[in-house]
Amino acid sequence: MLGAMQDWTMRVTHVIDHAAREAGTREILTYWADGTETRTDWAGIRRDALKMAQALQKLGLNPGDKVASIAMNHARHLVSWFGVAGMGGVLHTVNPRLFEDQLEYIINHADDRVVIYDAMFQPIIDKMKDRWPNVEHYICFDSGEHTTAFEDWIGAEDGNFEWVEGSERDPCMICYTSGTTGNPKGVQYEHRSTILHAMAGLQPSALNCMTSSVYLPVVPMFHAASWGLPYAGAMAGMKFVFSQVNDPAVLDMLMKREKVTDSAGVPTVWLAHFQYCDANNLELPKLRAATIGGSAAPKFMIERLMKNGTRVQHAWGMTETSPIGTVGGPTHDWDELSFEDKVAKTMMQGRPIFGVELRTVDLDDPTKVLPRDGETSGALQIRGPWVVKRYFKAEEDAVTEDGWFNTGDVGMLHPDGTLQLTDRTKDVIKSGGEWISSVELENAAVGHPAVAEAACIGMYHPKWDERPVLFVVKKDGQDCDDKSIVNFLSDKVAKWWLPDAVEFVDDIPHTATGKISKKDLRDRFSDYKLPEA
Amino acid sequence: MLGAMQDWTMRVTHVIDHAAREAGTREILTYWADGTETRTDWAGIRRDALKMAQALQKLGLNPGDKVASIAMNHARHLVSWFGVAGMGGVLHTVNPRLFEDQLEYIINHADDRVVIYDAMFQPIIDKMKDRWPNVEHYICFDSGEHTTAFEDWIGAEDGNFEWVEGSERDPCMICYTSGTTGNPKGVQYEHRSTILHAMAGLQPSALNCMTSSVYLPVVPMFHAASWGLPYAGAMAGMKFVFSQVNDPAVLDMLMKREKVTDSAGVPTVWLAHFQYCDANNLELPKLRAATIGGSAAPKFMIERLMKNGTRVQHAWGMTETSPIGTVGGPTHDWDELSFEDKVAKTMMQGRPIFGVELRTVDLDDPTKVLPRDGETSGALQIRGPWVVKRYFKAEEDAVTEDGWFNTGDVGMLHPDGTLQLTDRTKDVIKSGGEWISSVELENAAVGHPAVAEAACIGMYHPKWDERPVLFVVKKDGQDCDDKSIVNFLSDKVAKWWLPDAVEFVDDIPHTATGKISKKDLRDRFSDYKLPEA
Ligand SMILES: Nc1ncnc2c1ncn2[C@@H]1O[C@H](COP(=O)(O)O)[C@@H](O)[C@H]1O
Repeated sequence: MLGAMQDWTMRVTHVIDHAAREAGTREILTYWADGTETRTDWAGIRRDALKMAQALQKLGLNPGDKVASIAMNHARHLVSWFGVAGMGGVLHTVNPRLFEDQLEYIINHADDRVVIYDAMFQPIIDKMKDRWPNVEHYICFDSGEHTTAFEDWIGAEDGNFEWVEGSERDPCMICYTSGTTGNPKGVQYEHRSTILHAMAGLQPSALNCMTSSVYLPVVPMFHAASWGLPYAGAMAGMKFVFSQVNDPAVLDMLMKREKVTDSAGVPTVWLAHFQYCDANNLELPKLRAATIGGSAAPKFMIERLMKNGTRVQHAWGMTETSPIGTVGGPTHDWDELSFEDKVAKTMMQGRPIFGVELRTVDLDDPTKVLPRDGETSGALQIRGPWVVKRYFKAEEDAVTEDGWFNTGDVGMLHPDGTLQLTDRTKDVIKSGGEWISSVELENAAVGHPAVAEAACIGMYHPKWDERPVLFVVKKDGQDCDDKSIVNFLSDKVAKWWLPDAVEFVDDIPHTATGKISKKDLRDRFSDYKLPEA
Repeated sequence: MLGAMQDWTMRVTHVIDHAAREAGTREILTYWADGTETRTDWAGIRRDALKMAQALQKLGLNPGDKVASIAMNHARHLVSWFGVAGMGGVLHTVNPRLFEDQLEYIINHADDRVVIYDAMFQPIIDKMKDRWPNVEHYICFDSGEHTTAFEDWIGAEDGNFEWVEGSERDPCMICYTSGTTGNPKGVQYEHRSTILHAMAGLQPSALNCMTSSVYLPVVPMFHAASWGLPYAGAMAGMKFVFSQVNDPAVLDMLMKREKVTDSAGVPTVWLAHFQYCDANNLELPKLRAATIGGSAAPKFMIERLMKNGTRVQHAWGMTETSPIGTVGGPTHDWDELSFEDKVAKTMMQGRPIFGVELRTVDLDDPTKVLPRDGETSGALQIRGPWVVKRYFKAEEDAVTEDGWFNTGDVGMLHPDGTLQLTDRTKDVIKSGGEWISSVELENAAVGHPAVAEAACIGMYHPKWDERPVLFVVKKDGQDCDDKSIVNFLSDKVAKWWLPDAVEFVDDIPHTATGKISKKDLRDRFSDYKLPEA
């Protein structure tokens, strides 16, 4: 050795050690479902994580073993992120809204040996227990009624424990995709990928995590590691405000009382918040920033938050990308832009953070890489250290020969690197050899005063291959007909994009993560025939 | 393999690839010594770095080979950071202010095969050439008068080049310590340590690098990698404003005209800037933040910048730590602090960023780790992925058995993690078994209206072991005597700290990096005898 820097294995235990040491007294607040609140701090999280790691070893768990959590956002869930990783284990954060078959499949597929859950999910446990033959232990985060309570379980330990060491490529978490087709697929987040993702994510142009941040992540801890926020927040020494419930009244109260600076969540969270504030004549909370992801935020939402003085930014990503791919932080020319231009930029998905790379390829010929011209849209691909290479237990890699992961999203890249999503590969409609974006049609349609929700799918057409059909849920007490809608759309999209039919329905099916389920919609209308023109 | 994230070798070429791709047109401005200016951008830097890597290969350089730069801050110097690393080489950034013996030693010790220099340093080249027998090629960054000009050299290439790959633990840069005793020591920055350091450094609570930043680093690129700013800036897609000269008139003009948001440098830079603005009745530039390091900024400087609306923060570190150890970004309770408390906090050295860890140990018994109580001061130690383990070509590691590097600084840690430096281990004065901080005595003394500069060293004392002697340079046209100074100090430090003698001198010796050289002062006064009390 001719000289070297120090060896340092990237393990997430460094993250909690840092937070406890440098921000030990910075608060972690939890609002529980029963209306009570508890406060701990980073030193407390670490102390409990050490006890939990000890307790897991006593249960006979070994490095590499998996522990499932079925839980909302709270401090004890946070403890388990570091407690499981700290004994060398892998935390499997389960989405409680999954269907029973999916729940059965993923817990068995992951070989989970322990399940830790919130009392509100006791019905799930009761129903599923027999279908999870390999689960050896059940612990309840917030009640001792049916099984050991978390606090009693770790309370029996003294916390005198040394983190288990290992390779930085060891997994520390596994998240399953919601799987619109076939079984859900497991993505193993590694210690190394997790640390790199969090370090990149906390930068000013992205999640902008700093010591003074007071962060309320509405995005669930079971959804793609809550966008890595718990790790990034620990690195930055932020204060966290967690709520076990997503009731807008509670979120509003917490944001105002705790002077929350930042929040992150899917657009529907803000819809509910707007409704709550409007119904009760309340002002919106004055956040520094709202990061929105999971699906695109509608224009009026972006405008209203921006007018309220909040920096609004999309984050785009997916379970397979840890999840952050792009973030729409303010561009360098931000201050010179008009309000309209700011809104237009904010409606896009943002720019890739250091570490990941994007490209688009032709939808028909994936060997053809498309120009970053802000015009040509194609299939979006991504690569980087926190992007999946191979799904858990898969026989083959999930990437192209040259290492790109196919996101299933359709969009275009602008010359400045901004990603603009237009659709999902599966949902884009091929008409006469050209592509129609179902999402753009939907977004345009919800601008109609009588439309509550709209979903567009392609239906078989003998001549054009596929033609768009729009399914519409009307707003309560509002009426309109198909002509009014097509007429409304006619100056918003190309003429040949206009739907061949508009069908009014009572409801549109959704996935477990709250997105429109086009698969279910297609199933429901599998016998649908386009009207003869 | 049961599932995995993608492989991604941490190489600094990823950094320039990212900047060129995502911030390709973001400007890099250079103000040259002859008063001309040139503008390029991140895409241009990458294009030229590819050509430079090609040109280096044509000269016969192999991965691991070293290239020296003797240059100020400018875009071509930046090109060489990525061009050398991109062909697998190691850039040795040389401080042109080193003494001839040191210049001879380090270039030979590093085995530099190529030297690239600024025309203003031609006298150094002329004087040293014969003493550098192993240097095969000389290139001049900004002139073709004496040897090949950089632009001609890389201009002959087409840039059709693939970055040389390698291990993430390969070195990409070597920096030598200024070496107050013995020969300078080489610290090899690795690709991995460089990337981790830059990712941690750009966070909001530290260097706060974002897309909208316009950064003028006054800290030289030859001084500890310019605090990693070029890498962090490329990751964030910042605009850089470089100046080949440190003339305050030029810096002031550039800061105002280019709307510079951030600057970084040693305190003396700001002293000169104040004087320039005062003499010319100009306002100070309105920076978003000024990061100050290298030595402690005096109180009046911090106050004046803060009152001007600039966030002021110390960064503490050293060549051996890449260099960032701590940064004094605003604490979470910042907004509630009084101006005085803000200034007091800002005078300290800040808090460790994620990745590095600090501790203090007893000055007499280094096995005794001291409490982080904000009171007990001791020898400061650090460890982490961007801290040196072994100096270049050294026979032994530079760290303790449990992996800590001894910084040679003396200070204390506060409970919230803040570092407060009080002295250097070598300069602290041992009197009757207790320690006196030479730096605190100096800082107090420069508050005296007639004192321009002060340096304090310990002199042998038969009873007390050592006693402080203060060397003072008077301000032009000001007079005072030793009694007036001791009197001035008497309500600022403990009585037993008061110097046994005050000696007036015409000048105080400085090191190549502009710090007071106590070693030279001690040499100059090696025959000094304390007055009999
Ligand atoms: N900011 C966003 N805008 C639009 N769609 C998004 C955004 N973020 C995520 N998505 C969609 O959500 C998918 C990932 O879902 P999931 O793996 O469940 O997180 C992506 O592939 C996108 O289709």
